[in-house]
Parts: sequence; C-alpha cells; structure tokens
Amino acid sequence: MSDYDSPKLTHLNAAGQPTMVDVGEKTATRRVARARSRVVLGAEILALVQHGDLPTRKGPVFQTAILAGIMGAKRTSELIPLCHPLGLDDCQVTITVALPDAVIIECMASVTGKTGVEMEALTGASVAALTIYDMCKALSHDILIQETRLISKTGGKRDFHHADA
Amino acid sequence: MSDYDSPKLTHLNAAGQPTMVDVGEKTATRRVARARSRVVLGAEILALVQHGDLPTRKGPVFQTAILAGIMGAKRTSELIPLCHPLGLDDCQVTITVALPDAVIIECMASVTGKTGVEMEALTGASVAALTIYDMCKALSHDILIQETRLISKTGGKRDFHHADA
Amino acid sequence: MSDYDSPKLTHLNAAGQPTMVDVGEKTATRRVARARSRVVLGAEILALVQHGDLPTRKGPVFQTAILAGIMGAKRTSELIPLCHPLGLDDCQVTITVALPDAVIIECMASVTGKTGVEMEALTGASVAALTIYDMCKALSHDILIQETRLISKTGGKRDFHHADA
Amino acid sequence: MSDYDSPKLTHLNAAGQPTMVDVGEKTATRRVARARSRVVLGAEILALVQHGDLPTRKGPVFQTAILAGIMGAKRTSELIPLCHPLGLDDCQVTITVALPDAVIIECMASVTGKTGVEMEALTGASVAALTIYDMCKALSHDILIQETRLISKTGGKRDFHHADA
Amino acid sequence: MSDYDSPKLTHLNAAGQPTMVDVGEKTATRRVARARSRVVLGAEILALVQHGDLPTRKGPVFQTAILAGIMGAKRTSELIPLCHPLGLDDCQVTITVALPDAVIIECMASVTGKTGVEMEALTGASVAALTIYDMCKALSHDILIQETRLISKTGGKRDFHHADA
Amino acid sequence: MSDYDSPKLTHLNAAGQPTMVDVGEKTATRRVARARSRVVLGAEILALVQHGDLPTRKGPVFQTAILAGIMGAKRTSELIPLCHPLGLDDCQVTITVALPDAVIIECMASVTGKTGVEMEALTGASVAALTIYDMCKALSHDILIQETRLISKTGGKRDFHHADA
Repeated sequence: MSDYDSPKLTHLNAAGQPTMVDVGEKTATRRVARARSRVVLGAEILALVQHGDLPTRKGPVFQTAILAGIMGAKRTSELIPLCHPLGLDDCQVTITVALPDAVIIECMASVTGKTGVEMEALTGASVAALTIYDMCKALSHDILIQETRLISKTGGKRDFHHADA
Repeated sequence: MSDYDSPKLTHLNAAGQPTMVDVGEKTATRRVARARSRVVLGAEILALVQHGDLPTRKGPVFQTAILAGIMGAKRTSELIPLCHPLGLDDCQVTITVALPDAVIIECMASVTGKTGVEMEALTGASVAALTIYDMCKALSHDILIQETRLISKTGGKRDFHHADA
Repeated sequence: MSDYDSPKLTHLNAAGQPTMVDVGEKTATRRVARARSRVVLGAEILALVQHGDLPTRKGPVFQTAILAGIMGAKRTSELIPLCHPLGLDDCQVTITVALPDAVIIECMASVTGKTGVEMEALTGASVAALTIYDMCKALSHDILIQETRLISKTGGKRDFHHADA
Repeated sequence: MSDYDSPKLTHLNAAGQPTMVDVGEKTATRRVARARSRVVLGAEILALVQHGDLPTRKGPVFQTAILAGIMGAKRTSELIPLCHPLGLDDCQVTITVALPDAVIIECMASVTGKTGVEMEALTGASVAALTIYDMCKALSHDILIQETRLISKTGGKRDFHHADA
Repeated sequence: MSDYDSPKLTHLNAAGQPTMVDVGEKTATRRVARARSRVVLGAEILALVQHGDLPTRKGPVFQTAILAGIMGAKRTSELIPLCHPLGLDDCQVTITVALPDAVIIECMASVTGKTGVEMEALTGASVAALTIYDMCKALSHDILIQETRLISKTGGKRDFHHADA
Repeated sequence: MSDYDSPKLTHLNAAGQPTMVDVGEKTATRRVARARSRVVLGAEILALVQHGDLPTRKGPVFQTAILAGIMGAKRTSELIPLCHPLGLDDCQVTITVALPDAVIIECMASVTGKTGVEMEALTGASVAALTIYDMCKALSHDILIQETRLISKTGGKRDFHHADA
C-alpha cells in the first residue's frame, strides 16, 4: 500500500510473480506528475528545427511531438504491463530549446484518482522524444535521448520535487 | 528518397506541414536496427532486482520489461505519428546489469521491407526502460533513463554502426 | 473553463500550441450527446440493403455498422488527439431508412463525468457511416457521407438542441 | 436493469438490435470477479514447462502468460463489442500445475464501478490461455483450452459462487 | 472477386452473414485512393482558425487535424470491421480554406497490396474532420461535416475519378 | 527454425528468456488455419438465442460474435506477446447450433506470409466465444467456453488435420 518507503518491489507478489497493485481501498485525490526528457540533436539540426519552429513556436516538429506525447500519455496503461488504466484530467507537453544543441520536453499529467500518474508523464515525455527523433533522424544517426526523469509528483502519500524542478 | 544525406527534414513537405515519406518506389530489403537504453537504478535497487533476477536471469522485472519492449516495438506506428505501419520479422530485447548501479537494455528489430526499423528498435528499448522504471518506482523517484540511442542499422541506403556497437 | 461562449480556441494555449483542456476542477454530471450522420447510397443500393435488412431490421449491414459505431465511440480518445479518455455509461446507435436513397445514423453517448461526450457521439456516427460505406462500396464509388452533425447535448454548462432534434 | 434474473438478452433492444446496457443510474460498488481456464498441454509438454518454471515459479512461459492476461483484461472493452469501458482497481493472474497434464489459470479482476467485471476476468484468463498455447504450440497441435468459466462474482445485484470456487 | 460491377454486397456471404473478402489470390499492385471531406465552420470561426493558421499554414488546428488524419488512416482496419489489415506506403492529408466559411480536407493513401485503400483515405479524411470539429467546438455547436466522398482510386480492377477530382 | 518437431520451446532463447522467432529467412507461402470453440449455453438460453437467430441465421447474437471474432483475429499480435504482426488475406467466422445446449464457433484465418496463422484463428474463435458469453451472461453464470482447439493448418512445414476436421 505504501508508495515508496519500504524496500520491496510492489509489482511482484509473494511468489515473485508480476502483479498489479490493488488500489481499491485508496482514496481518489488530485494527482499531478511532471516528467522531463532531453533530446540532444546537435547544433546543426537544432538550427534547422528552430528555423521552422521559432520564434513562433508553432512549427511542425515541435507540434507533432507535443501531440504524440499527449496521445502516448493517454495510452500508458496499454504499454506498461502493470499500470492501471486511468482517465486523465489534463496532459500538457511543452518543448523548449536548450542551446546550443538540445531540446527539453516537459510532460505534465493530472488525474483525480486512486493512483499516481508518474508513468503517464514519463511515457508522454518519452513518446514526444521519440517523435522528435523520428522527424530528425534523416539528418543524423547520433541523436540522443538523454535523461528522462520525474521532476515532481503531488497528491499521493508523499510529495516529491526533484532539485531541478 | 535519400535516407539521411541531405540537410532537410523529410517529415515536412514543401508547405512545412507534417507528412509521411512515400516508400512506394523503394525496394524491400532485409533491414535490421539495434537501439540501446541505459537505466540508472542506484546500487540498492539494482541489488534487489538482481536478487530476484540473477543469476538465473529469469526474474520478473527483466522479463516483464522484455515483453513490454517487444510489444511496444510492435506498436511503434501507432505511437509515432509519421511512422509507416510495418510487420516485423523479429524483435529481441535483452537486458544486462551494468555494475554498480544500472541496467542496459538492447532492442533489435528486423523486417524485410521498404523502410528501416530504427524507430521500432528505439521504441522497444524505451518501453522496456519505462517498464523497469514502473516496476522499481516504489523504491525511488530518482531513477533515470539516462541515454537512449541507435547502435546500428543495416539494409538501407547506408549502414550505420555507432562506435560502441 | 467555459465551454463555448468565449471566442477562443480552447485547444490552443497562450503560445498557440495544442493543449488539452484541464477538467480537474469540473464537477461530474450526467452528460448526454446525440449526433447524426446521413449516408446517401442511391436508390438501387438502398433497395439491396433494405432487402437484406428490412422489415426485420436485423440484417448484417445495419448491424455491422451499429457495432462498429459503438466500438468506435469507445475509442474516441485514441483517435482525436486532445480528447479526454472517458468511460461511457451508454452508447446507442440506430439506423433508419430515409427514402428514396439514404440512411440516417444516430449515435447517442452518455457518461457521468467532467466533460461532454459530443466527440464520442460524432465519432460513433462517423465510424458507423464509414462502415456502411465499406459494406456497399463494391456497388458504387458515388456513396456520399453527406452530413454529420451534433443534434443535442445536455448536462454541461449550457444545453443545446438543434432545430431538427 | 436487472443483472440476470429475467429471461431476456439485455444486449438486444426492443427492435432486436445490439445495444449496450445503460449503467448511468447504477451505483458504483466494489465489484470482484474470478474466472478460470484450464489448458491441457499433455504430460510431456507440461514437464518441459515445469522444468523451466518450477519450483521457482518464475519461468518465462507462466510469466509471459500472466502478463498477457493482465494486459488482455485491461483491453476487454476494445475486444467485446458491447462491454463498457472501465478502469480496473486490480487484476491478478495466477497459474498452477494440474498434474498430470494441464495448467489452471485463474484471473481476478476488480473495480469500484457501476458494472461488473466478469468479462474482464474471463478475457484475462482466455488471453493467458492463448499465450500458453502460443508458447507451446511448436511442440504439439493437440493443446486444448478445455474449459473457461466464471468462478465467482461479488458486488453486483446478486453474488455468485461456482461450486468449485 | 470483382470489385464493384456485380450488384451484390461482397461483405455478406451466401448465408447473409458478414464476411471479409478473400484477397489471397489477388496480385499486389500499387493502389492509390483520394478522399475529401468538407467542414463548414462558419465565417467567424474560419477567421479565427485562419488567423492562427494562415498564411503560414503551419498553425495548430490544421496540423493537429493532419496528424490525426494520418494516424486514423493507419488504424482503419481496427475501426472498420471487415477491412483487411494493410500497411501503407504513404498517407498525405492536406487542408485548404474554402471561403467564406469552410475548409476542405483531402486524404491520399497508397499501398502496394492486394486490396484498395479507399477506406483508409475516407477514414483519414473523417478523423481529420472530427479533429477540426473538436478543436473548434467550444465556439459553436453548428459545425457541420459535409460531403465526405471518394475522389479517385487507381490500381485496382477499374480506375475511378470523380467529376471534381 | 523448425515449426514443431523438436522438443523445445521456440519462444525461449538460450538464456531462458522470452523471445520472438525470427522468420526473416522463411519463404512466404499461403497459410490457412482453422480453430474451433464450443460454448455450452444450456438448452433454455440456446432456445432464446435461436429464437432470435434462426432459421435466418442473421440474428444479432451470432452476428455480433462473428464480427467480434474477425476483429479480434486482426488484433492477435497485440494480445499475444510473441506473435508476429501479420496482415490477413481473409478471416471467416461461422457459428452453428449444436443441439441440445451449445453452439460451435469456427474461425478460419489465412495469409500469404512467412509464419502461420494458428494464433489468429484461435484468437478469433476465443473472442467470438467471449462475445457470446457477454451477450448471454445476464441469463446465467454457468455458461462454459469448452474446448477451444486447432482443427487444421496448411501451408507451413507440415500440414495438420485434427481427427474432427
């Protein structure tokens, strides 16, 4: 029932077999999670992407990635075997340029529910990152999806805020 | 028609709108791609996972992630907006321990087709990484999906092998 | 937060990027929406379809379309990028003959939730219309999905009833 | 509105057309259902599977089937045309050996909702059974999914417990 | 085996039950289909959408609809019960303004395969139209999806070109 | 590479981990598989279903199950973790009454491909059986899905015909 303070893998049962966590007795609260992923494109590709995308920030690479991230977050429970199927109250993906060579994706997911939405936020960020990769891959095979991590989480047993949050 | 040698974004058309790449005139060849993702769990969690998973390497965290990765690779074209729907001849996910604190996921995808399977390999590795995250997240919020990248690619216009391959 | 009385596109944020609408603060109410689609088959095809389908109304063209419409409505949030994932309390699709040459599909969707189900009703009607098209397309390429629209909507901020409802 | 005591097919409307059941007026209660499926593998295949899977019960055939069953249960409403889309509070799949020649799969599904989860439990058991079949089919074409049935159901209008439960 | 010149419903078998069409004996050819859908937004909404979208044509309403249309086309066989699962060589969605009050969506799908891609083109156009509806629906309930139809089809038994093509 | 004559589990690799089977070197041939499932409804429910469904065999229970079975067969590779994603040339589901108390579902799947379609046929039969269960479950909790098995298989390394085929 605990979220993270006992040293055991909650997704394994006593027999060591994979298992969902029963959330039937939990109370529905407003849960919010934010995740971040950094994609290193290299300065040349970043310039090309920026040329199309900035300063208007309406360009197709970013927008395609934003939409893919939101749609991916909605499908988290289909992709991650032991995730609970959840609705979402909201999901926002933003992408910013990190000069000289990278972009930063941030995905926020929220729900009023019995379990957290970390995996939704992380999946949304990851699918957005993969989509940027896909749209730029004709230009280089050295694109790197670097540092996908949770930034903050509220509404569960214990809040979490990463130092960079 | 070129895969990666002209400095343009193939997923944008002349009007700057997102677009698929027409592969109708391409020849079907045997395509293989390998991608790698590194997940930093920390030494304590790694020990727990190893305890359950090694030396037999049959344990549930790794196996759950392997299956999720394979199933994720099969759904790449649903997740990445401009990817072609493809069959797969094969998909293999392997996970190895990188002491003291990480695991390395490698995903190989292959197909006899008109377009490459880099995105399938990268998506498989990413979904496996997210699944490991999910199964260990009750133990820490500081798990990091550190680096996801293409390792090799053969069968298209030009082969690619990353220095680490 | 308003549903439709301010002249702005709620699915774009201040930066002009696509965004979901946060429904976290909304109250769950019983929402019902009805949509209608008209498919012009031509009198000859309609006679064939009727021959199989009427007067029993159990025939396979209509039933296939009814089931496809219901199943399509359930998948609305996978198809429409910024739709919230929602359960449904009910979904009904009915098809009636509009002599001399058309059929009328009506799809009703309802949910007790924080956001409306217009898109579910419209998606259900559209998928049913496409299914009728598919089942009759061997007979003509001139089938027309003539008009798909919302007929009524209740349970949100303001009710709506189209003149034809 | 009744669940099972009147002799009519609730999934057909007055016109004999397929229809969902409106659950809008129902109260959300804690619903639990258990289903069981028996797969006859033959003694030789069972020995092979056991060799890999027992006594640790961590082996890949069983675990793959467990995960497939849980993931299948989550997708029930996509597969069964008139099922309501539901979240799940929990889903557990267990597999035990029934000497000399079979395995028994049990799938438990639970939700706090307006409608039961029998179909989720039955779908989870069936997909797990199909997965065992798939993993063993290279060894024999005579594998039999012998009997899939509901074992118990609580939380709806009337509880049910099969004699074997 | 004929595509459209005999007056019978190919998706019903001799017993009147729904059925797929066997394409096993057909030859794979390059198939292209184009479909069109018109969405009547009204002049005021069109101005708002244009303001964001034109003259750059990179704006988010159109781009979101383009991506949704392409992704929808890829999922046609999941939505339309008797459609064959197909890959796609290409899928292009374009949206143009039809003054004073409407937008025109055109979806082209192509494949080298044994069966046509009319349904993919029509589904792509329909999902794009529904997405425009969704993004503008906060402004009006009188948006109309009008005249979804096939424009051309080549590569099958007989080519088709609508008068407007 | 062999399909079924060596006593090993092809879906486990040398390390005992789950794995797909590489079909890259296989030749595409016409593959056909048939599977059968028996659903014991009891004589009373069968009479009700027959009343609606026979003698026309166009009734909604059977048709709903037929469509669900075909749609389920198309999604086999999403449900069964290690199945290859495949197109299908054809899929037929038929349902017949087995007096006094049961129905027999038969699902045929075919493809021109590198691997067999047994799992598609078995999945189609199983989803059709579950759908019949769903549509009749309001009448009894004692419905039984009995004996799902492969009936025949041709086009691979070795043909198979069950004694009952």
